[in-house]
Amino acid sequence: MGLTRTRGARSTTDLVAGVLGSDRLALARAITRVENQEADATALLTALYPHSGRAHIIGVTGAPGTGKSTLVTALAQSYRAAGMTVGIVAIDPTSPFTGGALLGDRVRMRALAGDSGVFVRSMATRGSLGGLSKTTGDVVTVMDAAGFDRVIVETVGVGQAEVEIASTAHTTLVVEAPGLGDEVQAIKAGILEIADILVVNKADRPGLDRTLRALEMMLEIEGNGARYVRHHGQLLRVESPVESDEDEATWKVVVMKTVAMGGTGIEELRQRIEAHRTWLMESGEMALREQLRIANTLENIIRAELNRRIAASMPASGLDDLVEAIRRRESDPYAAAAGLLSAV
Amino acid sequence: MGLTRTRGARSTTDLVAGVLGSDRLALARAITRVENQEADATALLTALYPHSGRAHIIGVTGAPGTGKSTLVTALAQSYRAAGMTVGIVAIDPTSPFTGGALLGDRVRMRALAGDSGVFVRSMATRGSLGGLSKTTGDVVTVMDAAGFDRVIVETVGVGQAEVEIASTAHTTLVVEAPGLGDEVQAIKAGILEIADILVVNKADRPGLDRTLRALEMMLEIEGNGARYVRHHGQLLRVESPVESDEDEATWKVVVMKTVAMGGTGIEELRQRIEAHRTWLMESGEMALREQLRIANTLENIIRAELNRRIAASMPASGLDDLVEAIRRRESDPYAAAAGLLSAV
Repeated sequence: MGLTRTRGARSTTDLVAGVLGSDRLALARAITRVENQEADATALLTALYPHSGRAHIIGVTGAPGTGKSTLVTALAQSYRAAGMTVGIVAIDPTSPFTGGALLGDRVRMRALAGDSGVFVRSMATRGSLGGLSKTTGDVVTVMDAAGFDRVIVETVGVGQAEVEIASTAHTTLVVEAPGLGDEVQAIKAGILEIADILVVNKADRPGLDRTLRALEMMLEIEGNGARYVRHHGQLLRVESPVESDEDEATWKVVVMKTVAMGGTGIEELRQRIEAHRTWLMESGEMALREQLRIANTLENIIRAELNRRIAASMPASGLDDLVEAIRRRESDPYAAAAGLLSAV
Repeated sequence: MGLTRTRGARSTTDLVAGVLGSDRLALARAITRVENQEADATALLTALYPHSGRAHIIGVTGAPGTGKSTLVTALAQSYRAAGMTVGIVAIDPTSPFTGGALLGDRVRMRALAGDSGVFVRSMATRGSLGGLSKTTGDVVTVMDAAGFDRVIVETVGVGQAEVEIASTAHTTLVVEAPGLGDEVQAIKAGILEIADILVVNKADRPGLDRTLRALEMMLEIEGNGARYVRHHGQLLRVESPVESDEDEATWKVVVMKTVAMGGTGIEELRQRIEAHRTWLMESGEMALREQLRIANTLENIIRAELNRRIAASMPASGLDDLVEAIRRRESDPYAAAAGLLSAV
């Protein structure tokens, strides 16, 4: 088989040409090389980067159990029906033990299989301390360069992931669902402020009213007249009601209700995302978000390189002696770190 | 008030003496300085480090809704009844918007208030990309030096936090609960391998049998005779049943059932933790775990310092021009990062 013969032997140049020509096999291989940080990953990304910047990047985050994967699948189908192509990066909670992404490409988003206008890639969070953001950004760049109109990045929103998704996406959806526990509710509050659009999925479930009330209370959309608006990437508290909803300078975070499993509310959600994209471009906010995305990318690249240098500068045997001295409390890690750093 | 007068003016030396003398106010201040990375944080930690290394550090992690806080509270009460003192570090999902730890010291663990043998500290995950691990380790060092017999670190186990807790703790508890959704189940699998002890809390809830079966399937404790044992920090697959349960070289990960709210199973859980501590010391595994902890601490300190240097080496104006050039696709972030790094 030709496919087997050329596997791995394909040159970086061929791979770049393949990605730009929307060759799915080339795309899959390029992503793998980028994800595994293979030798030519930087060369690949450098070649693809000038062709990126056209896709609109949609981040989808939320607590476990809110039905994010189903929502992303329905959203992708809606975009396909509107004639657009969609790349999906699904970031999975991973088992270091099984080694792979747990939910996997196959289990999730089965409904999208066989559609050449959709490309789904699951990524593992494994061993990615601080590196997940870089790898995610890199994979998005590859999909963007491959010409997908929309790239959706899905991640479980607990901990740092939600902050990272906001610095990767143009439009961030925070997904909620009725009837989750109190701790989940608390976590939600932590991710509300990164939302451009709030989605209450599984809106046919009991407890919808309570969830809506809680969200509205948090957003203070109603009540004392105060509300929060996004303005140049900042969430601002507006003490009095905003004069006009037509005001271009602000974006109103609204709550959308969906039942992704049955397709309810998906079309409206897609239109709201597109409205956000239009607002980003007309208000000048898009340029600001792009600047933030690029600054973030730069920082991630530098961080990854410095991590590599730290690892390279630490001979395992020398470190062992140091660690043992600290363990015996003959030294302390702060003095030892200062010594190591002076050598870097 | 004397307290008001000396606030902030207290010297590092006084603070160190206060922490070593178990002065709660000094302890609270020292932790705040360490957490906020104030000017004398490193001096404080350097002075306290030689006095650390006596506490047994217990990590408690699990998905949202498993009742970790209640379990930690019950466990602390059990330790107190056994005559031991307990420090608790509770890492909260945080709202960057509200700025503080959401669940807070006051809401959680109210039952422990007024007991001078317990010290609870909530920490926010805010803006702690990669830095949470260092700060957590530093706060544990302060509590350890203050003389607490046991230090419990509680964190929501989704994403990276669970890996970090395993590198901070001597004994790691992974908490499950019946009746959580499928996605939560999947996340669970990702944290099983760091467990020294598995806890199914809320064991009076419907779905207990299903949860236990799922856990046993994952652990393969029963069935084909294979099972997993911890050996020198690695999870090893044992194809045939281990000959003797008395074998000192291995630790058997078992599932403990608790109802933390009613106190059921807590005493047994505490005894299992103590059995793990004994095993760690008798098997020689404790020295290995301490080495891992120290190596991890060293890396965290170095990473934090390099991050500080990156930030210091980037003049905001110069970066703006670079970012704008990349946004216009006149440059790319990989080339720009290489240029910046050569200047560091």
